[in-house]
Amino acid sequence: MPIYGLLVAYDGSGFHGFARQGGPQAQLPTVQGSLEKALAAVLRTDIVTTGAGRTDAGVHALGQVVSFSVPEPIDDLPALQRRLNALCGPEIACLEVEQAPDGFDARFSALSRSYEYAIFTREVHDPFSRHVAWHHPGQLDAEAMHAAAQALVGSHDFSSFGRLPRATPEPPSGPPSPIREVWSIAVERQDDLVLIRVTANAFLQQMVRSIVGTLVKVGEGVRPVSWVAEVLAARDRSAAGPVAPPQGLFLMEVAYPEDPEDPEGTGATTPPAPG
Amino acid sequence: MPIYGLLVAYDGSGFHGFARQGGPQAQLPTVQGSLEKALAAVLRTDIVTTGAGRTDAGVHALGQVVSFSVPEPIDDLPALQRRLNALCGPEIACLEVEQAPDGFDARFSALSRSYEYAIFTREVHDPFSRHVAWHHPGQLDAEAMHAAAQALVGSHDFSSFGRLPRATPEPPSGPPSPIREVWSIAVERQDDLVLIRVTANAFLQQMVRSIVGTLVKVGEGVRPVSWVAEVLAARDRSAAGPVAPPQGLFLMEVAYPEDPEDPEGTGATTPPAPG
Repeated sequence: MPIYGLLVAYDGSGFHGFARQGGPQAQLPTVQGSLEKALAAVLRTDIVTTGAGRTDAGVHALGQVVSFSVPEPIDDLPALQRRLNALCGPEIACLEVEQAPDGFDARFSALSRSYEYAIFTREVHDPFSRHVAWHHPGQLDAEAMHAAAQALVGSHDFSSFGRLPRATPEPPSGPPSPIREVWSIAVERQDDLVLIRVTANAFLQQMVRSIVGTLVKVGEGVRPVSWVAEVLAARDRSAAGPVAPPQGLFLMEVAYPEDPEDPEGTGATTPPAPG
Repeated sequence: MPIYGLLVAYDGSGFHGFARQGGPQAQLPTVQGSLEKALAAVLRTDIVTTGAGRTDAGVHALGQVVSFSVPEPIDDLPALQRRLNALCGPEIACLEVEQAPDGFDARFSALSRSYEYAIFTREVHDPFSRHVAWHHPGQLDAEAMHAAAQALVGSHDFSSFGRLPRATPEPPSGPPSPIREVWSIAVERQDDLVLIRVTANAFLQQMVRSIVGTLVKVGEGVRPVSWVAEVLAARDRSAAGPVAPPQGLFLMEVAYPEDPEDPEGTGATTPPAPG
């Protein structure tokens, strides 16, 4: 069956997360539920999607990738995109639609995910960033946070910073494991914002927000730079700082193996073109 | 009685405009109503405010100026600001509080108001700008819009572009007049945004949005650059283009006579310091 990939942005404020809910919560609005309803309406068949990142309630995306298969090839992808954007509502935007290579799966084919977290540090709150940043007024030492964060780079047991996902299929490669590989993490100040960017092969539940809440303790001067390495070594959820609120978090980009037909490598950030 | 000035930002999405409503609409949420309620709670006396710009429902502000007088001087202005910000809710932010010179009135002392309007032109909508820009997908020739807009600079009868305000006190200087003086107007493209900035001594009701709707007809190529001068000369509301929607409009700045104690002139954009 042909497989397609969507590049999706969404304002997570009004959603109970990306993932469709089951049981008594099946009626809660989710991004996946909205996409699947729109896809079913356009393609006139039930569609099951897979998302690269299962973002929590209130978390946003600028570069979520979603894949699905259909019984028959879709002739007119631009028309599909237009109709999806008309049906999904203003909170969700389908930025790209492409046919993907055989076997492509937005989740299991992904090499890495990149998230960004925004902290607004001005004393007075900002009416326009309240749904897209964490208002944390006062001094925050971004350089100390950046230095502390480097202890997280590499392959580690991140049990201190998150939970294993519940009730979701695990990668075929093995049983649940709290080991994740952080490729890079950077903390930078831009005027009244402190931005935290982290790329990893995958993340535990609430891992980015838990890292942010922990780094903020360093930024406030409450904990020393060396503390983050201690938290990591503890492998204990209670060792970390509090979980930062969801509204500052964005799924920015998902990377996939380079497409041989895309030698410039831009395909690594979007679903590969037809192979 | 001492007079105070507030510099205020607000997300107008949830408000029925800046101005407090009377009669059967007195319960509708307004920015002025929220500010006056918060001021009354903090100062323990009824407060009547004046705003520099009576923004419409859904219109935002980054630099609204609001003045009020109180029977007794306020000792601790930073405390007033903190308590206002705690009471006003996340949609409104009080950025500055200052004592103003005798006779200061946010509306009648103002020399000029500057507004900015944002048009988002990408084909696919953006979930994060839907409350702060007008989504108008497709080609828009910003250079033609800029050229056409220059016909509006100067002192003109703007009857084609707006209504006289109803049921509000007029400036002491004279009877209602549709003549306004546009100091500058600029149209500029920034990636997927077309930004229109206009400064005038004052504006008729819906004047900026009517100018934007008219310039967009030129940007679309539906009307020639010379058409805007014809619309202006017609002095007829039906000659103009449609009124652009409110969510793209921001009151950016209000200018006041230069404060003699502020030789660098920064006081021209905020309430003058104590004189």
